[in-house]
Amino acid sequence: MAVGLQLPAPLLPIDGLRLGVAAAGIRYRSRNDLLVIEAASGTRGAAVFTKNAFCAAPVQLARRHLGIAAPRFLLVNAGNANAGTGAAGLAAAQETCRLLAERGGCAVDAVLPFSTGVIGEPLPVDRFADGIESALADLRKDAWLDAAHTIMTTDTLPKGGSRQIEIDGHTVTLTGIAKGAGMIRPDMATLLVFIGTDAGLPEALLGKVLHAAMAESFNSITVDGDTSTNDACTLLATGASGIEIVDADSPGYAAFAAALADLCQQLAQAVIRDGEGATKFVTVDVVGARSKDEARQVGFTVAHSPLVKTALFASDPNWGRILAAVGRSGIPDLDAARVDLDINGVRIATAGGRDPAYTEARGQAALAESDIVIRIDLSRGDASARIWTNDLSHEYVRINADYRS
Amino acid sequence: MAVGLQLPAPLLPIDGLRLGVAAAGIRYRSRNDLLVIEAASGTRGAAVFTKNAFCAAPVQLARRHLGIAAPRFLLVNAGNANAGTGAAGLAAAQETCRLLAERGGCAVDAVLPFSTGVIGEPLPVDRFADGIESALADLRKDAWLDAAHTIMTTDTLPKGGSRQIEIDGHTVTLTGIAKGAGMIRPDMATLLVFIGTDAGLPEALLGKVLHAAMAESFNSITVDGDTSTNDACTLLATGASGIEIVDADSPGYAAFAAALADLCQQLAQAVIRDGEGATKFVTVDVVGARSKDEARQVGFTVAHSPLVKTALFASDPNWGRILAAVGRSGIPDLDAARVDLDINGVRIATAGGRDPAYTEARGQAALAESDIVIRIDLSRGDASARIWTNDLSHEYVRINADYRS
Repeated sequence: MAVGLQLPAPLLPIDGLRLGVAAAGIRYRSRNDLLVIEAASGTRGAAVFTKNAFCAAPVQLARRHLGIAAPRFLLVNAGNANAGTGAAGLAAAQETCRLLAERGGCAVDAVLPFSTGVIGEPLPVDRFADGIESALADLRKDAWLDAAHTIMTTDTLPKGGSRQIEIDGHTVTLTGIAKGAGMIRPDMATLLVFIGTDAGLPEALLGKVLHAAMAESFNSITVDGDTSTNDACTLLATGASGIEIVDADSPGYAAFAAALADLCQQLAQAVIRDGEGATKFVTVDVVGARSKDEARQVGFTVAHSPLVKTALFASDPNWGRILAAVGRSGIPDLDAARVDLDINGVRIATAGGRDPAYTEARGQAALAESDIVIRIDLSRGDASARIWTNDLSHEYVRINADYRS
Repeated sequence: MAVGLQLPAPLLPIDGLRLGVAAAGIRYRSRNDLLVIEAASGTRGAAVFTKNAFCAAPVQLARRHLGIAAPRFLLVNAGNANAGTGAAGLAAAQETCRLLAERGGCAVDAVLPFSTGVIGEPLPVDRFADGIESALADLRKDAWLDAAHTIMTTDTLPKGGSRQIEIDGHTVTLTGIAKGAGMIRPDMATLLVFIGTDAGLPEALLGKVLHAAMAESFNSITVDGDTSTNDACTLLATGASGIEIVDADSPGYAAFAAALADLCQQLAQAVIRDGEGATKFVTVDVVGARSKDEARQVGFTVAHSPLVKTALFASDPNWGRILAAVGRSGIPDLDAARVDLDINGVRIATAGGRDPAYTEARGQAALAESDIVIRIDLSRGDASARIWTNDLSHEYVRINADYRS
C-alpha cells in the first residue's frame, strides 16, 4: 500500500565499501536476511541510535564498539531484533561480532551489529556462522539494492537513494538504504539506515553532519509515535574519493551536508510512504511559531492524533479535529483566534474559525489527493517546522492486531 | 460494544435540583437533545473545563458566568458542540442563556451553557426557545437517568451513579451523570459531567474538592489522547441536606471528598468502558516510580501507544511493545534492567527481559480476559499511578473514519 513510492533509482557504489548478503534462515525462509558491509581500512563511522531506554543488545554493543574502534564491518540481520533479551542477548550479539571478526580478520570492536525483527526471542546465533561465510563470499560494490532488500521486514518496497556532488573538481558520492516504518508490525523493530560516502571526514565532523541531517529527516517523521528499541542510522565515510573535509569551514562541507540531508530526507519520506497501512502521505507544515521546538510540538501533536489520522484515511475534511489537536498541543498562551489552516492550498479556517469562503466540496476535493499538505499558521512568530506522517487505516489495525505467528 | 458496562443503578434525586429534557431537534430526530438543570437559590457551583486552547464558545461563557454569579440553571444540548464557531458562536451561546434566563427569571450570568456534538457548524439558536419551554415544563427531581440519556451522542449507554454518606447524623447524597469517550467520533466533542449534591460547601472549597476528585478519575483516563474542545465537569451543591461543610477540616469533608472521588472514578471508568470501539477495559498500574508525575507519564505513554492498544485488541501478549513504550516515555535515567511487568497477575518480564517461567500460553490466557491490568514496576521509588484506557480496534477506525453525514 506504499503511497507514491517506487523502486529506488540505481544505487551508486561507494569506493571502499562492499556488501554481501545471505539467506541465514534467522526467521524467514527462502529469502536473504543477513547483510555484511565491509569498510576499507581508514573508513570512519558515525551513528545515531534510538533514545528508547529499552534499547536492544546490538544497539548497546554497536554504540560501545563505535567508541573504541573505527568500523571495518557492519553485520545486519532481519527477523529477530535481539531486544528484551537481557544479558543473554548481549552475549549473543557479541558472539556474532566475534564470528565475523574471526573470518574478516579484524578486532571484535571493529564490527558493528544491527538487528531488526521480533522482540523478546533469543537470537539464533548458531545460524550466523554459515550466513557470515556466505555473505563474505558475496561481497560486491554494487550490492546496495540487494542489501536494501535483505534488511526488509514488512516493508513492501526496498528504500534507497544516491547523491553526487562536486568538490574541488572531484566527484563525491553518497548512497544510503533504509528499512522500516514506525514499529512496523506486531513485534518488528524497526528503523535501520546505512549510508556510505567516499568523502573523508574526521569522526567528530562525521557525527556532527549526521546529527544535522537527522533533524529534517528521520527526526521529523512519525507513523504511530512508537519509538523502536532498535533504531539506528549509520554513516560510513571511506575517503576513497580523495576528498577530505577536515572541518565545517572546509570547501565542500556545506555541499556535503546538504546532499546528506537531502538523501536522509528522501529515505525518511520513503519510510512514511511505505508506513503500515498508509493510504496518504501527509506533510504537516507549521509556520508562524515562536520557536522551532514549538512548531515541532504542534506538528507532532497533529501527526499523532488518531482522530486526525482516521479522518485523513476517510478523506474527510474534518478540520475541527486538526484545530482541536493544535489546541491541546500544550504550547503556552496559544491564541486560538489567530490560527489559520490550509489543506493542499485550500483555506479551511481563518482566525480560528471556518473561513467564510470555505465549502465542504472544496475541502473534500483537497482531501481526495493521496499527498496531503496541512498548513497551520499560528501567527505568533517566524519559526516553522515540517513533519511527515501518514494516515490511520483499517489496514494499520489489521497489520498490528495480526497475531505474530 | 461497551465493556462490562450496564445501565446505572437507580439515580437518587438531589434536593434543590430539578431536571427537564426536551427534543429540540438540534441535530437528531425523535430523541431528547436538550437538558435544563434548575438549581435552587443558594446553590453553589464549581467546574473544571478543558485545557484545549480551542475551547468551545459555551466553555468560554460558562467559565465567565461562573466567575460572576451563583448558577441557577445549566443548559445542555447534544448534537452541536458550538466549537470552532468564532464570535458568532459566542453570540449564539449568549443568546441561548438569555432565552433561558428570561423564562427562568434569573440573571443571564446565572445560566451555564454546555454543548456537545459536531464541531464547526453554527448552533441553531432558533430551535432553543421551544426546547427550553418544553424542558422547563418537564422539570422533575427524579429525571437524572433521562438527563443522562439526553446528553448522549454516540455513547451506547447512559452513565450515572449515586453515593450516600452520613455526616453528623444527616444523610448527604451525591448524584452524577456523564457522557463521552475521548473525542467520541468524527466530529463529536465530548466529555460532559454533571454532579449534584445536597451538601453545602463554599465555592472555594467546592472547587478544591472537585479538582481533587479529578486526579484519580477524569484526569486518569484516555481513549485516544485527543483532548476535546468542550470537556467540562460541573458540581452543584444545594445545601438542602442542612449539612454545611465550611472548610477542609470540617467533620464530613473527608467522607464527602472520598464519596465524590469514588463517584467520579465510577463515571470515568464508565466512559472508558463505553469508549469508541472498545473491546477491553485496561488498567495500567505503574509502581516503583520516583514520583507520581513520572508514574503517570509512563502510564499514559503505554495507554496511548497504538501498538500496545492494537495488541490488546488482538489479545496478543506482545509484551515487547509495552516495554518499548515504557522505554520511550522520556523519564530520566530509566534503568531498563530493573523493570518488571505483570499482566493480570501473570509475571511476563523480570529485570527488563522475559521472565524465565513465562510461557506464551500463560500470556495468552491472561490477555483473553476483557478486563486487563498491566502492572509495571520501575523499581526506583515508592510512587505509583493508575491510568485507565481501552484497546484500538477495527471498530475505532470505522467509527472515526465514517463520514460525518
